[in-house]
Amino acid sequence: MTRENYALIEEYMKSCMADSAHDREHVRRVLYNALEIATDMNDVDYDVLIAACLLHDIARREQQLDPSICHAQAGAEKAYVFLAENSFDEAFAQQVRHCIKTHRYRKSTPPQSIEAKILFDADKLDAVGATGIARTLMYKGAVSEPLYSLLDDGSVSDGNGDESPSFFQEYIFKLQDLYDNFYTEKGRALALERQTAAKEFYSRLYNEVSASNNSGRALLDTLLK
Amino acid sequence: MTRENYALIEEYMKSCMADSAHDREHVRRVLYNALEIATDMNDVDYDVLIAACLLHDIARREQQLDPSICHAQAGAEKAYVFLAENSFDEAFAQQVRHCIKTHRYRKSTPPQSIEAKILFDADKLDAVGATGIARTLMYKGAVSEPLYSLLDDGSVSDGNGDESPSFFQEYIFKLQDLYDNFYTEKGRALALERQTAAKEFYSRLYNEVSASNNSGRALLDTLLK
Repeated sequence: MTRENYALIEEYMKSCMADSAHDREHVRRVLYNALEIATDMNDVDYDVLIAACLLHDIARREQQLDPSICHAQAGAEKAYVFLAENSFDEAFAQQVRHCIKTHRYRKSTPPQSIEAKILFDADKLDAVGATGIARTLMYKGAVSEPLYSLLDDGSVSDGNGDESPSFFQEYIFKLQDLYDNFYTEKGRALALERQTAAKEFYSRLYNEVSASNNSGRALLDTLLK
Repeated sequence: MTRENYALIEEYMKSCMADSAHDREHVRRVLYNALEIATDMNDVDYDVLIAACLLHDIARREQQLDPSICHAQAGAEKAYVFLAENSFDEAFAQQVRHCIKTHRYRKSTPPQSIEAKILFDADKLDAVGATGIARTLMYKGAVSEPLYSLLDDGSVSDGNGDESPSFFQEYIFKLQDLYDNFYTEKGRALALERQTAAKEFYSRLYNEVSASNNSGRALLDTLLK
């Protein structure tokens, strides 16, 4: 890809970005993850891969404003229109569209091309490890969701069985299972290197808040008449 | 304290709370931390301590709307008025006011009473360890600040020397130094138990994002013409 085209696509991406968990640094990390995963593969079209990484989250804002909109589907069409309007090749725009459309985990639209599989894994890689923990916490803060829920007896729920959204619920129902859902060997290997960071943070946080909650409730009970 | 007075003060607290980092669960954790620290001390007025813990952050929203307002100072006055209007004893309301006014780190207004020192430490304890990391990240997300800044050469800044706000900047300039600023031995001991969780998370996150950034930039440079 020429530096001019890279700058053009990057500028458009920057004009579209939303919250701190899906900002331009997320996009940059996904691009860098993708290039690292690609070093392990053959026949990668790097122009398609770079454009797809840069543009994969350009419809996040639309999804935030209207949750019935899927940012992958909307972003794929938005990217296609942007590339077509800027005189990129039709086949190229179609390949980028496929990557973006399939980068979100949906059984109905799995990634088919090698570039789409790499984008999928590169994006998931930014949701594992300490980075995934940090981004999830920032997102929970942005949408005013709590760290955890309390059970009926006043103790801290570890997230299992929770219906209300919280950081612990997201960790249990989504983050901890991501490691099994990679399409590439390299993506999975990079994810597993980061697994301990996420696991330890979750268990340390749970231990801090639940130990203090348990002893504190007992102490308070002795003080209230 | 009677259960009726506890419920009255707690209800008022709930009506005042702001973001996910300073929500009613933060208040509950601070109260539980305070009760645990107090087990180590003599002559604690538990009614003052409980009321001060419950009410310590009731002016957070005012500070968010107008950063020139100090939530400790404004919250102290707000709590005093609330207690006076609800027929609590004048001396009691004054003691609670002192605790709230001095719970924020300001050299000009150090905590003097034992209850004020305990509240100060209990609040700081919720800013250390995994809990402090989690709350800081949620707050950064809520105010749309990034995880880190980039240096001029495109690499990830570890926070040292940063002027722009970010999670790494906050960790380096505030979170990592909290462990030295406790008034009670018990508060400090509890904080030190949680220090590894915060340190390891910060260094793992920095390693994840900076390694990927360094290799990714080099790979990208070979691909752009």
